[in-house]
Amino acid sequence: MMRLKESTRAPQGLDKDEIKEKTKKLRERLHELQAVLFAESKHAFLIVLQGMDASGKDGSVKGVFNGVNPMGCLVKAYKAPTEIERAHDFLWRIHAHAPAKGMIQIFNRSHYEDILVPRVKKWIDGAEVKRRINHINNWELLLKESGTQILKFYLHISEEEQQQRFEERLTIPEKRWKYKASDLAEAKLWPQYREAFEDIFEHCNLAEPWQIIPADQNWYRDYLIASAVVERMESLNMQYPQTVGE
Amino acid sequence: MMRLKESTRAPQGLDKDEIKEKTKKLRERLHELQAVLFAESKHAFLIVLQGMDASGKDGSVKGVFNGVNPMGCLVKAYKAPTEIERAHDFLWRIHAHAPAKGMIQIFNRSHYEDILVPRVKKWIDGAEVKRRINHINNWELLLKESGTQILKFYLHISEEEQQQRFEERLTIPEKRWKYKASDLAEAKLWPQYREAFEDIFEHCNLAEPWQIIPADQNWYRDYLIASAVVERMESLNMQYPQTVGE
Repeated sequence: MMRLKESTRAPQGLDKDEIKEKTKKLRERLHELQAVLFAESKHAFLIVLQGMDASGKDGSVKGVFNGVNPMGCLVKAYKAPTEIERAHDFLWRIHAHAPAKGMIQIFNRSHYEDILVPRVKKWIDGAEVKRRINHINNWELLLKESGTQILKFYLHISEEEQQQRFEERLTIPEKRWKYKASDLAEAKLWPQYREAFEDIFEHCNLAEPWQIIPADQNWYRDYLIASAVVERMESLNMQYPQTVGE
Repeated sequence: MMRLKESTRAPQGLDKDEIKEKTKKLRERLHELQAVLFAESKHAFLIVLQGMDASGKDGSVKGVFNGVNPMGCLVKAYKAPTEIERAHDFLWRIHAHAPAKGMIQIFNRSHYEDILVPRVKKWIDGAEVKRRINHINNWELLLKESGTQILKFYLHISEEEQQQRFEERLTIPEKRWKYKASDLAEAKLWPQYREAFEDIFEHCNLAEPWQIIPADQNWYRDYLIASAVVERMESLNMQYPQTVGE
């Protein structure tokens, strides 16, 4: 089941302007729903964004969640673990940012990095990868059973699209700050990362399956993510509480 | 396997003064070992103290760990969860205090409260107790695999001893502040708590079994806990690092 053989692009014939209009409406609906989520404080949302470098994780946060009341929406970007983080189990720094009821928490990269980078670089062996996969599944179940909706998005871009975005980072002044020389070295490990991701999609779905988002075109990516989030929120039949606070 | 049928007292004929002298030596050794633990920063220690009200949890912290360098030893007392804690899964507030490598972390009450009080008060059903037991086992394994030694002590006192300690709290001015009227109501639920503890001893031992400490006599209790901690530390063959820091 090589899910990353799937297309990275929107289906032919889709009208870009029409989709953008739909995304705009979805975002408005998301704002309404987030307000009820916050008021009801019965559910929490954890949005996990993963993908290769330059796959549009930052862009998705902006494209989907801009305009949401920041009081109820937090973004945590995970980078290489610090010294104090490395002195703990790998989920310690993750659990600390689990959303409280009523909140949307976005993970820009996440606990999944701990079975990506160290695996591809061979810092950990296959047995350790399996142990971590088990712990991730258990931890996500713990959150789910406690009222957290987990939505996991893999932003699926092609190698060609990634190269083009790297070039833009070099040539467009406003994107220059995002360029890292190390990205090019990482890009050469594309097949290894793809294999690691395939394993994740297959084995890390006890609490929630992964959604593969064709992400070469930002407008289509944002539409798919916004749709998934709104759909999940709608399914919960959230209500403004009618009791009066103490 | 009713482990709480076992004696709450030291074996007959044990010399109290001799034991106290041994505990003093164990404490000195503990101070030495803690310094190496901290310097090496390869292992962490999590000491979990549980027991009925007035079973001597506070007293054990004082009796065993007084004199340890506080830079390397933290105590966290868990009380009824706050509003923000209740808005998360039950392990969220626990995981936050998992020890970093090099540290001793003492839990005065712990995650086990979440399958004691809510179970006895019937706030959660049997299925939820089982789910929580699973999550506790998984979480303890996560810590263990990441280099944390977990020592779990149940301070085992008799009902008669508990009643006597409650009376002391009422009559001795220096102990008055520890008295809570609610303790008496809790004490009536002794059989239900005992049953809940028996289940914990039987099912929560995937990472580490429980140690039942006869705790009617403080001198014997402190001796047993200090012995167990020192023995575990000795077994790790810890060494002062001989490399020079960067």
